[in-house]
Amino acid sequence: MDPRALRARRGRQLRYSSHRTPSPAPTCEVIQSASLSPKPEARMSSAVSPNAPTDVPEMPAIAGVKLATAAAGIRYKGRTDVLLAVMDKGTAVAGVFTKSKCPSAPVEWCRDKLSQGKARALVVNSGNANAFTGKTGRAATKLTADIAAKALRCSPAEVFLASTGVIGEPLDASKFDGVLATMAGNVAPDDWMNAAKAIMTTDTFPKVATRTVWLGKAKVTINGMAKGAGMIAPDMATMLAFVFTDAPIAQVALQSLLKGGVADSFNAVTVDGDTSTSDTLLAFATGAAAANGAPKISRAADPRLKAFTKAFHAVLGDLAEQVARDGEGARKLVEIIVDGAVSKASARKIAMSVANSPLVKTAIAGEDANWGRVVMAVGKAGEPANRDKLAISFNGIRVANRGARDPSYDEAEVSAAMKQPKIQIKVALGLGKGRDRVLTCDLTKEYIAINGDYRS
Amino acid sequence: MDPRALRARRGRQLRYSSHRTPSPAPTCEVIQSASLSPKPEARMSSAVSPNAPTDVPEMPAIAGVKLATAAAGIRYKGRTDVLLAVMDKGTAVAGVFTKSKCPSAPVEWCRDKLSQGKARALVVNSGNANAFTGKTGRAATKLTADIAAKALRCSPAEVFLASTGVIGEPLDASKFDGVLATMAGNVAPDDWMNAAKAIMTTDTFPKVATRTVWLGKAKVTINGMAKGAGMIAPDMATMLAFVFTDAPIAQVALQSLLKGGVADSFNAVTVDGDTSTSDTLLAFATGAAAANGAPKISRAADPRLKAFTKAFHAVLGDLAEQVARDGEGARKLVEIIVDGAVSKASARKIAMSVANSPLVKTAIAGEDANWGRVVMAVGKAGEPANRDKLAISFNGIRVANRGARDPSYDEAEVSAAMKQPKIQIKVALGLGKGRDRVLTCDLTKEYIAINGDYRS
Repeated sequence: MDPRALRARRGRQLRYSSHRTPSPAPTCEVIQSASLSPKPEARMSSAVSPNAPTDVPEMPAIAGVKLATAAAGIRYKGRTDVLLAVMDKGTAVAGVFTKSKCPSAPVEWCRDKLSQGKARALVVNSGNANAFTGKTGRAATKLTADIAAKALRCSPAEVFLASTGVIGEPLDASKFDGVLATMAGNVAPDDWMNAAKAIMTTDTFPKVATRTVWLGKAKVTINGMAKGAGMIAPDMATMLAFVFTDAPIAQVALQSLLKGGVADSFNAVTVDGDTSTSDTLLAFATGAAAANGAPKISRAADPRLKAFTKAFHAVLGDLAEQVARDGEGARKLVEIIVDGAVSKASARKIAMSVANSPLVKTAIAGEDANWGRVVMAVGKAGEPANRDKLAISFNGIRVANRGARDPSYDEAEVSAAMKQPKIQIKVALGLGKGRDRVLTCDLTKEYIAINGDYRS
Repeated sequence: MDPRALRARRGRQLRYSSHRTPSPAPTCEVIQSASLSPKPEARMSSAVSPNAPTDVPEMPAIAGVKLATAAAGIRYKGRTDVLLAVMDKGTAVAGVFTKSKCPSAPVEWCRDKLSQGKARALVVNSGNANAFTGKTGRAATKLTADIAAKALRCSPAEVFLASTGVIGEPLDASKFDGVLATMAGNVAPDDWMNAAKAIMTTDTFPKVATRTVWLGKAKVTINGMAKGAGMIAPDMATMLAFVFTDAPIAQVALQSLLKGGVADSFNAVTVDGDTSTSDTLLAFATGAAAANGAPKISRAADPRLKAFTKAFHAVLGDLAEQVARDGEGARKLVEIIVDGAVSKASARKIAMSVANSPLVKTAIAGEDANWGRVVMAVGKAGEPANRDKLAISFNGIRVANRGARDPSYDEAEVSAAMKQPKIQIKVALGLGKGRDRVLTCDLTKEYIAINGDYRS
């Protein structure tokens, strides 16, 4: 990773660090991050996305969660590719998964184990998705869980699994033998950035988010990490995301929180309209904050959970936006807002039609306010729309109104606006009160380069 | 147009010509084609697609149809951009149009005029789609029809219109004044290739097809032309296609024939999943062959129409394939065959999911038999599929079977197959008897280049 890009990305942390450390030398934290970033030969993309967030939070520890990463040599050389998260006894787990009819073996494993609702460990590997691997794939999930369970002295059914990477190649889970035991001895509470790095594939930056919020009279923390980049579309958009909290939330309530938060976060993000076989979002609640007086929550509708719910959904939204920012080859973050639709569902369908249109996305890559293509994408969505009531804006500049080009708009002003790193396309339908928002990115030659030479 | 590419493309014609013309000098026909091909500065793409058909038919005249092309300077310089087709009195017309909720003004014009079922003229311009142009757009269609009607002494309601090109720019129809009158004086029966060239936008080669078939005891001819390249997706795939015949077929029968033929031709083709606001397929039947004894057909189910229907649908299929071959930036024609689905409709949905997947299309551009992405695309289609029954082949080589990689396939053999200009992906679901086929192309950097710099 380019050190300048790393510095830019980690600006807030550098400021925090120098505030605490008078020495002008690089802080330990930055050195650690730099040294642990994947080596160039292990990266699919060579440069950090220009859309990478400049403010990366310091990730606090979460009571009841410890992390370790390692290089098991699954596919990549010279970088970490396994994450082990170990949770205290009594941790509740909830999950939402891909709607693919051909899910990966780990997705089937997690779905099956979710019913008992308790988790002691999460094992994630990058480089191999263990998808479409038949019986071998099922055997690999079982072996991985068995190895982890032995190392942690828990039941294999308490071990949750996720894999990301190439599809159709058998995953050699025997590579975890020994590795997971060593990791279990090395777990630490503050390794969040390295954890987020270990699960990357074509991502150009690790994705983390955190919030701290009051629950009753106790402070509780929510940490999340995600990996995404390509094969991103609704029905559980990002490939893998994991959220952890020390709040004492029962499994049923946690599941409800998760489902409620997915619709406008991960399911409102699309990179290329392709849905992975491996999409997994898991949430773990250790309940450790009960020791500080946090009330035990059994229902998502509990009024004491209001601030927590907002923060929890903010973590999901933050991670989902980072996935869009790191869309493969993306140079621009694109926000599509549709209002005046006949319903929110209709607005979503139209917004997704715009967000997934290759012609809209290539126009944005070309910094061209080609609203004609937005009209096309609205028209093809199949949802109620009246051409002669339609208005379209780019970054607040209305370019089309009532069925024709807005006569008042200034081409030079719009051209300048299109050079911004974030483009907001607003479509006002003028029919009703339905409104929705989705995030995507532009479609560049780099996307083709990344995906035209991945497996080979 | 590169003369070698032109020769390659027109191989059969050259052979025909030299058979008839002993002189080794280039035939008149080839010179004419070369001289009338669009000049480089007027082309969006500089090179003829490597997928262009090598056998281009000689287009026969059709009794009752005459054509002319001209350069009206709508948008392009140094190339033709208007086509006028003049039909004899009594010509029946049928049409199928985009399902876009925001159709272009000419689409609305044609839909409105179709009810009376008679046509005397077709005016097509390239360079400006006259879409999303509000009242100005409606006025432009009326003015164009009025100018043509005056030149031909017919009713404006007998003039059919189609426009293709940029969306949202007002079309200055006054440019047709004078031009159409001159063209009306210059119409000729054998200008099909030039007609097909005048309607091109980002197309790299003109698209024509012809069939001659018996109807009763008379030979009848079907000629078609199309333009496509980008913004191609089902719901009337190609942007513009026109089919002409001298067979005496009543309007109702013609409309039925057209609808029946669209499903497995134009609606089974996708380039980028984007549906144009201008998609138009019109069919004209002059009835002139009645003079040679062709029976008048009033019902599409008439058994005498069997051979004609097959030939008519073959023309539609031929044109649709050429559209896929000329997908923007495409280097490979891709045929997706899905069988064993629970129904034909389900097979279509799965085939389209594969055909529109950017990850599948980029893999093909990279000549990578990445069947894992095919699994992903099957899985995201939302149709019944059983991962453990799925088999996938590339150009006849089975690479995946029963939920895992086919152990017997030879990577080198598959790699060699992926270098072919045509790639067939076969997905066998093993569930039922539903089967379908769609055509698409690969997704290359050239697509981005073409579409990232179109309007500006």
